[in-house]
Amino acid sequence: MRRMYLEMFHQMNKQLGQVDAWLAATVTFAEAKKVDPNVFLAFRLAVDQFGFARQIQIACDTAKLGASRLTGKDAPSHTDTEATIAELQARVASVRSYLGDFTAADFADTATRVISQPRWEGKTMTGADYFMEHVVPNFFFHLSHVYAILRHYGVPLGKRDYLGALTQKLPA
Amino acid sequence: MRRMYLEMFHQMNKQLGQVDAWLAATVTFAEAKKVDPNVFLAFRLAVDQFGFARQIQIACDTAKLGASRLTGKDAPSHTDTEATIAELQARVASVRSYLGDFTAADFADTATRVISQPRWEGKTMTGADYFMEHVVPNFFFHLSHVYAILRHYGVPLGKRDYLGALTQKLPA
Repeated sequence: MRRMYLEMFHQMNKQLGQVDAWLAATVTFAEAKKVDPNVFLAFRLAVDQFGFARQIQIACDTAKLGASRLTGKDAPSHTDTEATIAELQARVASVRSYLGDFTAADFADTATRVISQPRWEGKTMTGADYFMEHVVPNFFFHLSHVYAILRHYGVPLGKRDYLGALTQKLPA
Repeated sequence: MRRMYLEMFHQMNKQLGQVDAWLAATVTFAEAKKVDPNVFLAFRLAVDQFGFARQIQIACDTAKLGASRLTGKDAPSHTDTEATIAELQARVASVRSYLGDFTAADFADTATRVISQPRWEGKTMTGADYFMEHVVPNFFFHLSHVYAILRHYGVPLGKRDYLGALTQKLPA
């Protein structure tokens, strides 16, 4: 089980690497259109949904705080003040570096940890439930919204940019 | 490990239950606006992205074919001909019923299975890699796009509708 936790956080790390590439594609796209790439930070799909920058911040925090709460290892703090694509890329890089440092042993007691968050008003979840019902669905939710906002505003991305390289064997 | 596979497909089953509720909310929303709820089936976020119905079909297929390929258990077939919200709900229900029948034992040799798909042109993945790099990210991608399309077109949903009920303990 501890291996599966580690592998899922490795997968999140990989997906954040894709976000970094999407951000680079966004800069290229905006420059070709002769607009400031940073206009993307405020874009959103619905007036009462979080915008692009916030979606990236929450995707980062879901992975970072998830790993921290499930292992007890302190996470780097970020202040949600990113105002440019470059600053968002720096945040992604910081979280990727943090996620890259875990080993399977760090998740030894993850399943039975008691997890809470301020907004839960004293309610708790087991580590196993928090991981499966909260961390994984939330991470991919915000990741997909980042992608969807870029696609909606014309940045040329495809499913391969979403998934990244697959570990495949060539035919024998 | 086999337990984690089972639990992830249980989570997908739960999320598809949320899709069923989103579809019901879509009907309510459309009726209040005095429009045909089935107009939603063609809505999309970008001209070269799949529309709403196709996003639901692929979310369903990713879960269904993922579970089938990873266990060797035959999956129900679906013809991608849904033309109404009610037919999409029936498809979701069919996949949920299929996913509900698995046990941990079904995933005993999942990690080492050799997985392929026609579009991979002979390339293969291990079950472990296919699950982590393909099934999980793809399922949540299409699930989140279903949600994002509804939010973009005004259906009143929030994060709680996305996550569903959490397994939480009340404070002692």
